[in-house]
Amino acid sequence: MARSKAFFLSRMLDLKSLYGTALRTAGPDIEVLRPEEVPYPEKIRFAACWLAEADSFAAYPNLELVMSIGAGVDDLLSNSKLSSETAIARMRDPHQAALMAGYAAHEVLHVSRNFAQFAASASRAAWEPLPMQAPEATIVTVPGNGTMGEAVIRILRGLGFTLRVACRTDPDRPIEDVSYFSGADGVIRAAAGAHFVINILPLTQATEAVLNSTLFLAMAQGSWLIQIGRGEHLVESDLIAALDSCQLAGATLDVFHAEPLPEDHPFWHDDRLRITPHIASASVPSVVTEQIVTTARELREGAPLSFGVERARGY
Amino acid sequence: MARSKAFFLSRMLDLKSLYGTALRTAGPDIEVLRPEEVPYPEKIRFAACWLAEADSFAAYPNLELVMSIGAGVDDLLSNSKLSSETAIARMRDPHQAALMAGYAAHEVLHVSRNFAQFAASASRAAWEPLPMQAPEATIVTVPGNGTMGEAVIRILRGLGFTLRVACRTDPDRPIEDVSYFSGADGVIRAAAGAHFVINILPLTQATEAVLNSTLFLAMAQGSWLIQIGRGEHLVESDLIAALDSCQLAGATLDVFHAEPLPEDHPFWHDDRLRITPHIASASVPSVVTEQIVTTARELREGAPLSFGVERARGY
Repeated sequence: MARSKAFFLSRMLDLKSLYGTALRTAGPDIEVLRPEEVPYPEKIRFAACWLAEADSFAAYPNLELVMSIGAGVDDLLSNSKLSSETAIARMRDPHQAALMAGYAAHEVLHVSRNFAQFAASASRAAWEPLPMQAPEATIVTVPGNGTMGEAVIRILRGLGFTLRVACRTDPDRPIEDVSYFSGADGVIRAAAGAHFVINILPLTQATEAVLNSTLFLAMAQGSWLIQIGRGEHLVESDLIAALDSCQLAGATLDVFHAEPLPEDHPFWHDDRLRITPHIASASVPSVVTEQIVTTARELREGAPLSFGVERARGY
Repeated sequence: MARSKAFFLSRMLDLKSLYGTALRTAGPDIEVLRPEEVPYPEKIRFAACWLAEADSFAAYPNLELVMSIGAGVDDLLSNSKLSSETAIARMRDPHQAALMAGYAAHEVLHVSRNFAQFAASASRAAWEPLPMQAPEATIVTVPGNGTMGEAVIRILRGLGFTLRVACRTDPDRPIEDVSYFSGADGVIRAAAGAHFVINILPLTQATEAVLNSTLFLAMAQGSWLIQIGRGEHLVESDLIAALDSCQLAGATLDVFHAEPLPEDHPFWHDDRLRITPHIASASVPSVVTEQIVTTARELREGAPLSFGVERARGY
């Protein structure tokens, strides 16, 4: 059996050194090449990549499928130089969802349970308990109930918070005690009166700039935004206005329009913001290699793609 | 129907002002009195209390039952002036378990996901991601699988961590993918190589000083203790020795031998410790009133106690 040709591109990472060894074990029938190692570009049918530059695919006229090693494929969908005939696939990694849920849970707990105030008290050797309320009293809204959204929802519901989920269509298997808001205005209706909104949406034309003043005004006064989607979801000037008017008490930001966040960006010095360097989640190597191998084999055999992306939908 | 006589004692709180109104609604057949309002002490059969002083019950010769409005009853069990004939009951509050699970999850995530380092980087406007590992690689040990323990275990397992539970006897309904270690040396076996130990045990003669150098040496090097049981579980000098030798990287302490933690206690100024003022959990008022009313009625009717404590077992 001829080995499938695969190649690896990255704006940021050398994927062959990260995953090459594991891929040789998981898929000995698949040959992995860096772009500069490709002898016959016209033989390449499959590419795995991470935030590839627009021109990355120009050299491969017979490319049939591009797979992201992350969960987001917004860079591939918006790449005008990538033929619309080329199929797109992405990771669906339960570990990644668990990491994302952990980040979201940490931030909701950190803010709602006043950990920053307790740290300030402790630094003064002061024993200063604060009144506590039942977790149910805190309303958390999650737009999106894909793999990521569902993991976040389950954990926060398990912690006793009141959960509201915005979704395109009502789920087949709703989670007990979770309210779903479907349809075009679902996000705003789900966010009405919310104490937290956790953005975990994929970036599509429909979701770009979804974190804007209309959403912030729908939320409870003094509420908190947790932004772990993509930088382009957020209208930065609307966030600052919502903070200045005290409509939002603060925000946790893990993703930005430009990454790394430039050293001179005012967000760094705004003490109403909690900033982390795009670490809410990451692909776990064993899952990456397994899903690349599965996808490459499916392509070779003309089988339906287990990890394919619907271009029109965007994820 | 004659109204049951109940009274309220507290070292710290005026329970009648906290719960009196809610109790009149939930249990109009139950009369609530402060100790100074009791006209005929010999008629008192039921007392609800929170950390009552040893002499609190001396005036009531016909006291049949004392109920703690918290989950712990170690103060009642060790009260030599309380007749061993007097029954003891306590709260079993799912909200309280959810609050406890939230505190534990926050601390495991805060430490294992390096949130303190990210805050330090952000304060220097520095974008400094750190390598991430699958949550499974982190081993968390929880001694005890009562209401509290089980809530902590379910949430941390849901976040993808590897969970080990020490228990007196193997559970009837074990949680999937959780390892149980029963028997006398269960705590040490469960803690072997653990990255976190979360102490949530009730305080009994068997569990006093359970957080000692033997346990710390069994844990992984550079591991972390989360102490949300009772102060008496911890041998403070053993903790400091484990920190000094770097066997433990740090500890989160919410409970102490003396509370409030004295202003001059060295713990306040030890930057390897994260200190909070006994806020890992609290009783939620609606549950407190409901369980007091249920218990008072069961006592009146001679029914088995839904929230009774087995004295010999200690919880």
